[in-house]
Amino acid sequence: MQYRAEQIRKSGKTIAFVPTMGYLHRGHLSLMVHGHNLADHLVASIFVNPTQFGPNEDLSRYPRDLIRDTALAEEAGVDILFTPGEKDLYPAGFETYVSQTALPEHLCGLSRPGHFRGVTTIVAKLFNIVKPHFAIFGEKDFQQLAVIRKMVKDLNFDVEIIGAATIREPDGLAMSSRNAFLSETHRKSALVLYRCLADAKQMAAAGEKDPQKIIKTCEAAINAEADTVIDYIAICHPDTLADVAAVDQPVVMALAVKVGSTRLIDNLMLFPPGSETL
Amino acid sequence: MQYRAEQIRKSGKTIAFVPTMGYLHRGHLSLMVHGHNLADHLVASIFVNPTQFGPNEDLSRYPRDLIRDTALAEEAGVDILFTPGEKDLYPAGFETYVSQTALPEHLCGLSRPGHFRGVTTIVAKLFNIVKPHFAIFGEKDFQQLAVIRKMVKDLNFDVEIIGAATIREPDGLAMSSRNAFLSETHRKSALVLYRCLADAKQMAAAGEKDPQKIIKTCEAAINAEADTVIDYIAICHPDTLADVAAVDQPVVMALAVKVGSTRLIDNLMLFPPGSETL
Repeated sequence: MQYRAEQIRKSGKTIAFVPTMGYLHRGHLSLMVHGHNLADHLVASIFVNPTQFGPNEDLSRYPRDLIRDTALAEEAGVDILFTPGEKDLYPAGFETYVSQTALPEHLCGLSRPGHFRGVTTIVAKLFNIVKPHFAIFGEKDFQQLAVIRKMVKDLNFDVEIIGAATIREPDGLAMSSRNAFLSETHRKSALVLYRCLADAKQMAAAGEKDPQKIIKTCEAAINAEADTVIDYIAICHPDTLADVAAVDQPVVMALAVKVGSTRLIDNLMLFPPGSETL
Repeated sequence: MQYRAEQIRKSGKTIAFVPTMGYLHRGHLSLMVHGHNLADHLVASIFVNPTQFGPNEDLSRYPRDLIRDTALAEEAGVDILFTPGEKDLYPAGFETYVSQTALPEHLCGLSRPGHFRGVTTIVAKLFNIVKPHFAIFGEKDFQQLAVIRKMVKDLNFDVEIIGAATIREPDGLAMSSRNAFLSETHRKSALVLYRCLADAKQMAAAGEKDPQKIIKTCEAAINAEADTVIDYIAICHPDTLADVAAVDQPVVMALAVKVGSTRLIDNLMLFPPGSETL
């Protein structure tokens, strides 16, 4: 893969890259279509990265379907599908990690210690192997996108990071490979994530400046649904992910909720009146 | 620099890279001559990297002479001398580090906590900016060379790491920018480092298999010199840097000694009888 990437770059052509953990859904495919339109060559990777799963997380039960994924990727315009094995990327004696000191101290980083160290490490490795000019990540994993942008800036990677809008089911549920785990009842409960984000967006647009009031409303809505346990609801600065004291600029509202045994995340930008044009 | 590097690579030419902290001596110049012969373009950097100095270390008094360095680098065949400022490489809010879990738990890493995190971070950054095909490091900083080789392997950098033999003064003292700090008396004491390494090499070649016996001999020699304080003397595996139980294969003997207030390091490979040809 690295040799191919170097050949492509040498020939003056550009590479767009979409890293994934597979079990592709329309969210991934939209990233791929985006990448296909951006660059001469589109590379996608499928690798369920063990270092971003905690000891009590769902690595072994993470859904996989390489045959279906391959067909979908091809349809979406992927020129090279890179599917390394675990021992290719983490051989015995592996000991070098990329990590951050500040961004992981927010949101998902707090309940998933080590998760973002796994993310930055694998993305750094993949960037070195795939040598992309552009890499496309979904805004659904908002903190991941912020973490990767920061890594690219801090470590001087020559890669342009592109965030792509979250793709949703018709009823608003954000696309996620983990949705496959939801029972019919839990699938219904899960709708509350987007519903309360949309309500929050309206509250902010109507002039509500107090993040705590917005969060409380959202909390109540989520707790009213069956089998939901809130991990966090936060209204924060889109770059630093630090909680904001007031919704007086565009901010991101992000949440993580366990529905049954499945942890779901979602987020939405909130705009106070008049700020959409900033 | 990154733009120039990309242009060079695109044109099908190769880049050799010698990162330094400046105050160039014949050791650096030998790396540069090596790089000049290896590749179409030779890049050298001068950057006194703050993240590899501990709070009680000599960052502020590290010797600098950019004008002299520039002339020496040009003479040695450097095509591009890259001299970034501290804020260019560590802007406000910098928070992404490259670190290792095992190699720094040996030798200099034990007395210089955080040092190798600083080294791997800056070298990763410089590799991303300079985009070299080859990077050349001196064997005098043996642990640094091992750490960088491991980082390149673990993070899949497309860079070939080349170790170059230590350059010494006629009396055996390994070239180091820190030698400039030595008084005449300390300069004489400092000779014991190479002398006891050379003696150890002879002991090993004569069949001495017990690392402790070799270390004890060396210890006594160093302690007999004025104003010396041993930080460590170790006989270890050249890749893992773990102490060896017996000198029954080629091993590295490494030491760090404070002479007056100047910390010096040196190392030498020891070969048991018959192993030189391995």
